[in-house]
Amino acid sequence: MRLGIDIGGTTIKYGIVSNEGKIIESFSFDTKVNDGYLLIVNNIISQVLIIKEKYKIDSIGIGVPGIVDKNGEIVKNCPNLFWKNVTLGKDIEFKTGIKTYVENDANIALLAEHAFGNAKGYSDVIMLTLGTGVGGAAIVDGKLLKGSRGYGTEFGHIYVGENKNRCNCGKYGCLESFVSATGIIRYAQNLYDKNQISTRVKSAKQIFESEDTISKKAIERVGYYLAVGIGNLIQCFNPECVIIGGGLSGAKDKLLNSIERNISSQLGFFNKNDVEIAIAKWGNRAGIIGASILSEYRN
Amino acid sequence: MRLGIDIGGTTIKYGIVSNEGKIIESFSFDTKVNDGYLLIVNNIISQVLIIKEKYKIDSIGIGVPGIVDKNGEIVKNCPNLFWKNVTLGKDIEFKTGIKTYVENDANIALLAEHAFGNAKGYSDVIMLTLGTGVGGAAIVDGKLLKGSRGYGTEFGHIYVGENKNRCNCGKYGCLESFVSATGIIRYAQNLYDKNQISTRVKSAKQIFESEDTISKKAIERVGYYLAVGIGNLIQCFNPECVIIGGGLSGAKDKLLNSIERNISSQLGFFNKNDVEIAIAKWGNRAGIIGASILSEYRN
Repeated sequence: MRLGIDIGGTTIKYGIVSNEGKIIESFSFDTKVNDGYLLIVNNIISQVLIIKEKYKIDSIGIGVPGIVDKNGEIVKNCPNLFWKNVTLGKDIEFKTGIKTYVENDANIALLAEHAFGNAKGYSDVIMLTLGTGVGGAAIVDGKLLKGSRGYGTEFGHIYVGENKNRCNCGKYGCLESFVSATGIIRYAQNLYDKNQISTRVKSAKQIFESEDTISKKAIERVGYYLAVGIGNLIQCFNPECVIIGGGLSGAKDKLLNSIERNISSQLGFFNKNDVEIAIAKWGNRAGIIGASILSEYRN
Repeated sequence: MRLGIDIGGTTIKYGIVSNEGKIIESFSFDTKVNDGYLLIVNNIISQVLIIKEKYKIDSIGIGVPGIVDKNGEIVKNCPNLFWKNVTLGKDIEFKTGIKTYVENDANIALLAEHAFGNAKGYSDVIMLTLGTGVGGAAIVDGKLLKGSRGYGTEFGHIYVGENKNRCNCGKYGCLESFVSATGIIRYAQNLYDKNQISTRVKSAKQIFESEDTISKKAIERVGYYLAVGIGNLIQCFNPECVIIGGGLSGAKDKLLNSIERNISSQLGFFNKNDVEIAIAKWGNRAGIIGASILSEYRN
């Protein structure tokens, strides 16, 4: 039995997961960001000690919304939690006596797909998580790609076309500026305003659920730029499978079809059958499930 | 002692290389492409048997201008040699009794840099080879990235901007269509023609050696698009080092300075000190040296 912990900016979810990826029992509590690192970690430790009474836990895995160094020892930066250079794994291991592994949450989501989801059985997989921002993760030859300092797979910031709206990273033309919820809302709202249609776009979901001309145009644009980005990633990694996760992946076929319509012209020497494009299997549960199997990808 | 063999479309070069990467003795003969696979391989085998009389060879490494499968067992396609699905390594090993490894030549060039050149000591390295086309190679966590079927690191075909000239791969806007010798010559020639200057551009070298306004413009453009491409690769791989090789890398500082002038705006969350950009150390010798150490990257 393993313990998977998913630390988010608003909630900390955790669950006991069987070696086959089944969640046996799960819990959650609010992330009181203002409590600071030590109080939050102590809270987690208390929960682990309670669980330890009831279950035999072989290892703990934790996903965090930020950058983790190459060895998983130092959480370098979690902007939403105000954590910088904390030794989360060691701190929990020291008090609980259970081997603890830490990783970035996009990587964790990919592990869940690779071990028990839609990327199962593949050695080379790419993941894009589409939400407020765009995250990325890659498994290369069965192992997580970390990059020299743990900053790899920033797929939201590859160039996919001209865009006057500067990305948060400082660049122009990043994938994120086109296909993040923020980018989609901005684009659609602009079109409504231009056409003097008094619609207030509140979410990307609203666009994907609407059937008007502007929404259709916005969805097609998302498909096109995702295809350019995925095309680039295929050239780089020659993956067997590309997984689309994050909040926007809730649009399922509407999103997938839009990518499919645009991908052919972005493949170069590859062809469509070389790579499968799929929506992530585990939505909300990816964090707990992926974290629980981290130990297997660390050895 | 190891034997490194560099099979090109016009010449086959080979050399005895010490374990420290020094070429002890080297030779070459013409690639008689029309002889076909069997005759060429028999020729190589004869040479190996002669060398075997004089030197104790621990392993043979071979670089080929084409695609090699993930395990280095099948040369899938070498368009210039008309080879398809040949078992080059096995064939030579069978007749010589020496363990033989085969790999794509861009990957081989990167191994030479990683083991004994300008990427020495780094765990994560990217290479771009700029010639008639644009090739790529990557070392991720100390190992060559191959991709699921050996087609990885096609960095010449990532999207870097709008381009009306369709790339050989069928896509528009590929890095190769801007920064290959072909792309540079086409761009400069166009500008000369437009300005009614009667210059015939015969090589990219001519552009890099010229000091006129059009050449300067062409070089700046190469630097810009290389910066966009390198920027993308940095987002994907977080490498410590990017190596520029191939014929065009002969332009050295003129090329490097042009990249340096353009890279800052393409780094996103990274900064300039995170990654070194360098010209390859081994020009013509990369093939022999890199091939000789292939055995070390295969185990």
